[in-house]
Amino acid sequence: MSSVGSGPVGTPDEHSATDLRAGAADGLMDAFWAYERALMTDDLDALDRLFAPGPATLRGDTDGLLVGHDRIRDFRQGRGGAPPRRVVRVHVRPIDADHALVVAVTEPEGGGRGLQTQLWQRAPAGWVVSAAHVTLPVPALDTRIWRVVGDPLVPATAAGALTGQSVAVKDLYAVAGQRVGAGNPARIAAARPEPRHAAAVEALLAAGADLRGIARTDEFAYSLAGTNVHTGTAPNPQAPGRISGGSSSGPASAVSLGHATIGLGTDTGGSIRVPASYQGLFGFRPTHGVVSTDGVLPLAPSFDTVGWLTRDAALLATVGDVLLPPAPDRACGEAVVVPELLALAHPEVAAPVEAYARDRAGGVRESWQLTELPAWLTAFQTRQAWEAWQAHGEWLAPRLHTLGADVRGRFEMASRVSEDDAARAAEQVAVARRRIRETVGDRVLVLPSASSVAPRVGQGLTDIRHSTMQLTCLAGIGGLPAVSVPTATADGLPCGVCLIAPADRDRDLLRLAAELAVAKR
Amino acid sequence: MSSVGSGPVGTPDEHSATDLRAGAADGLMDAFWAYERALMTDDLDALDRLFAPGPATLRGDTDGLLVGHDRIRDFRQGRGGAPPRRVVRVHVRPIDADHALVVAVTEPEGGGRGLQTQLWQRAPAGWVVSAAHVTLPVPALDTRIWRVVGDPLVPATAAGALTGQSVAVKDLYAVAGQRVGAGNPARIAAARPEPRHAAAVEALLAAGADLRGIARTDEFAYSLAGTNVHTGTAPNPQAPGRISGGSSSGPASAVSLGHATIGLGTDTGGSIRVPASYQGLFGFRPTHGVVSTDGVLPLAPSFDTVGWLTRDAALLATVGDVLLPPAPDRACGEAVVVPELLALAHPEVAAPVEAYARDRAGGVRESWQLTELPAWLTAFQTRQAWEAWQAHGEWLAPRLHTLGADVRGRFEMASRVSEDDAARAAEQVAVARRRIRETVGDRVLVLPSASSVAPRVGQGLTDIRHSTMQLTCLAGIGGLPAVSVPTATADGLPCGVCLIAPADRDRDLLRLAAELAVAKR
Repeated sequence: MSSVGSGPVGTPDEHSATDLRAGAADGLMDAFWAYERALMTDDLDALDRLFAPGPATLRGDTDGLLVGHDRIRDFRQGRGGAPPRRVVRVHVRPIDADHALVVAVTEPEGGGRGLQTQLWQRAPAGWVVSAAHVTLPVPALDTRIWRVVGDPLVPATAAGALTGQSVAVKDLYAVAGQRVGAGNPARIAAARPEPRHAAAVEALLAAGADLRGIARTDEFAYSLAGTNVHTGTAPNPQAPGRISGGSSSGPASAVSLGHATIGLGTDTGGSIRVPASYQGLFGFRPTHGVVSTDGVLPLAPSFDTVGWLTRDAALLATVGDVLLPPAPDRACGEAVVVPELLALAHPEVAAPVEAYARDRAGGVRESWQLTELPAWLTAFQTRQAWEAWQAHGEWLAPRLHTLGADVRGRFEMASRVSEDDAARAAEQVAVARRRIRETVGDRVLVLPSASSVAPRVGQGLTDIRHSTMQLTCLAGIGGLPAVSVPTATADGLPCGVCLIAPADRDRDLLRLAAELAVAKR
Repeated sequence: MSSVGSGPVGTPDEHSATDLRAGAADGLMDAFWAYERALMTDDLDALDRLFAPGPATLRGDTDGLLVGHDRIRDFRQGRGGAPPRRVVRVHVRPIDADHALVVAVTEPEGGGRGLQTQLWQRAPAGWVVSAAHVTLPVPALDTRIWRVVGDPLVPATAAGALTGQSVAVKDLYAVAGQRVGAGNPARIAAARPEPRHAAAVEALLAAGADLRGIARTDEFAYSLAGTNVHTGTAPNPQAPGRISGGSSSGPASAVSLGHATIGLGTDTGGSIRVPASYQGLFGFRPTHGVVSTDGVLPLAPSFDTVGWLTRDAALLATVGDVLLPPAPDRACGEAVVVPELLALAHPEVAAPVEAYARDRAGGVRESWQLTELPAWLTAFQTRQAWEAWQAHGEWLAPRLHTLGADVRGRFEMASRVSEDDAARAAEQVAVARRRIRETVGDRVLVLPSASSVAPRVGQGLTDIRHSTMQLTCLAGIGGLPAVSVPTATADGLPCGVCLIAPADRDRDLLRLAAELAVAKR
């Protein structure tokens, strides 16, 4: 390796190392600068040509490593161009006649410095990049995850079981002095600072946890995706290029990234369990009504629950000790796994869930006829929609245009649900609730937390939402406590095992999850 | 290049690519894992051995690129170990018999995913890394720079000249609902939320700027270093491995990184000009007394000024339009450069400052006898110390142990300044102020903003502080407006040209700086 070499620099007054030794890598710097021009003009064809074809090509950044030319191309097509920058220094390290490493320091227009390492190889048609590692300047905060964040934002008010823990709270919870944004810019512009903390926030602070910050949500929590059109798709560090899951997207990504140890969210129809599943986290929704929703913006009060996410089953249970009402310990009943529910999930997810049920939970198989499930889901969604419009319709009616298309469509549908439809749906839900509670009995139902792994960013979500909600609505309708335990597909992608327990057995269920989780995965 | 290869992975349940082809890179994976073990045990000798010797070796991360084995070794010695992690996937790309690229995905214990790209080469004694690029998970906020940050933390209260700009405010300014921390944990624990914004904060919000967040300061602003022992040394993206400068360290780093466009700080004895100089920013301290310090925690009121930092001279002037009292436009007088003042700076800094004075500012050389300067500096420091103790002594006396050694030493000295000494110092300062104002006259004095480039992290700072303060105290004693304009040494390191104008010529000076700055550098 030559001791030092350097290509041209962006401006003559910038310090440079000695010039590239002539002939050390014929044509390399031309290719380097052609790549830089293509990047700055978002010339996707040129960028694709300048990256080596095939499944071995690598490109990594803060959001993760993409493997294979096709994935890298998909990423470029989705991002809408790289931030403008100039190259201020280039270090060339020739390896042999056909390979060189090029490390460039960049200066983005927006400030800071970036770094780019590229392994170039000479292909028949010219030099191409076979591996790239890119570092952009870190923003003040990741606005896909956070609205406000501090060191801490609010300190613990006492020492306790959660001393040393930090909370990412979904932007539906009142935090004293802060506004509730609910993921919608019009809402936050109109909101006033809250006079006091939500009950759950107060309880966590009093148990020793610091409040790290206020994390993003899908608009009004009316989504399972985490693709808020205003604040962007929250990152999924366990599955780069895939969505985070929602609507507790910010708390989930914050916990996944280690920004906080506890994500305080809500679960109405899966908003804790789905991001837990997509990101390999533990997530819990309690029995409906047992944890106070005081100070939490409602979506559909008949189903809304305060839920939480962690990277660790023991901590999930400790949060339960703080938030749940006291109850005598009782061991959970036997685990039951239903082939017809497994069949609602993609086979790559059903397989590890079935294996978990069998190998860890010792579950017995039991066949259920699911003929009524579609009607139950419809009743759940109808009632949820009506309640959501009751909660927000008056304010939203003149502001529907401020919503992203997906959430807007749901609220528009909600605005058309009649009082009669809503009453009928409530009756159907009540019947279904009794049926679900009777069928689960004293046992623990094991099923997939979501019907698939996290979809790729940009992928259509309508079908996935429907099939996932067939699974998640069971706990929602039943008002039953549910924990999502992380597992993984054969391909190593996160997915979740959902354990549903009888009503008011929240602490027993959390203890079971902690016992089963000898390790994170 | 082989199409795919992979080394062993951290745990058997983690997905892996196909195994490394046997013999493709004999001994490489042993070296890779030896490096990983050395990293996890902070075995500095092993790490040094496993990095290629010489000046061409590279190691880069979010904070910048280090060039040369020695710099990399210094960095490792200073950081106190890498965060614990496991390697979850390894992609090996053999290049030839003696070179391979190894890209590893890591999972830090604290959450998220990391990425590491290493170019390995076979040396006589075995495989060594010749270039490395490391990405760690990004924290929720960089606590070296920020205490609280939001999107925004406080929105603008009206549209105006600063619409679209964002402010990083030093943690000495009152922000409604937030506490003033002054860089000291005991102080922040004891502080209460402020009822209203400081006057300067209010003015910027009313002119259209959003408040991005509350940025770090050296403790009680009593330092020029930016090396707060509690919150860490703020990064200097323009000079990796070097200190940020202080005491407006957080606002300076925030602006440098593009986290905010305006850094609102204070300058008593150089706390705007020194970080501006070290980080290649524009910085301004106004005529003493012309911008209200209402709501700003004092250090030494006889010298304290509200100051600001930007990456752009035009914006520096626009902030002046908002904060400064109206005044008729008058062209600044001729520039004068004093060889005896240049000689107080390191030659690598004096040279570009002299060149700037000559080539841009058209400055004339004028010899000054500086025989009184040491006495003036002593009087300034004595008076500053006494006022600082008046401001904080009562609260700090039982809490001196909560301060870092440098600031503690200064406050201990301050506690011993007698009333008589302080009165005598005030007289000396008054005499010196008249002398400085008379000597500058109607002209613009051009001098180095600081005596050196940013010192390396860990370097002793006592002598540098003294020689820099000989330069910065002139505007401090004179109560004169001073702007720091970025330039660079022959080696490409940032340094600053300071232009000092007559009292109340603040707007004229800012206009001059904007005219001279046809480009950032």
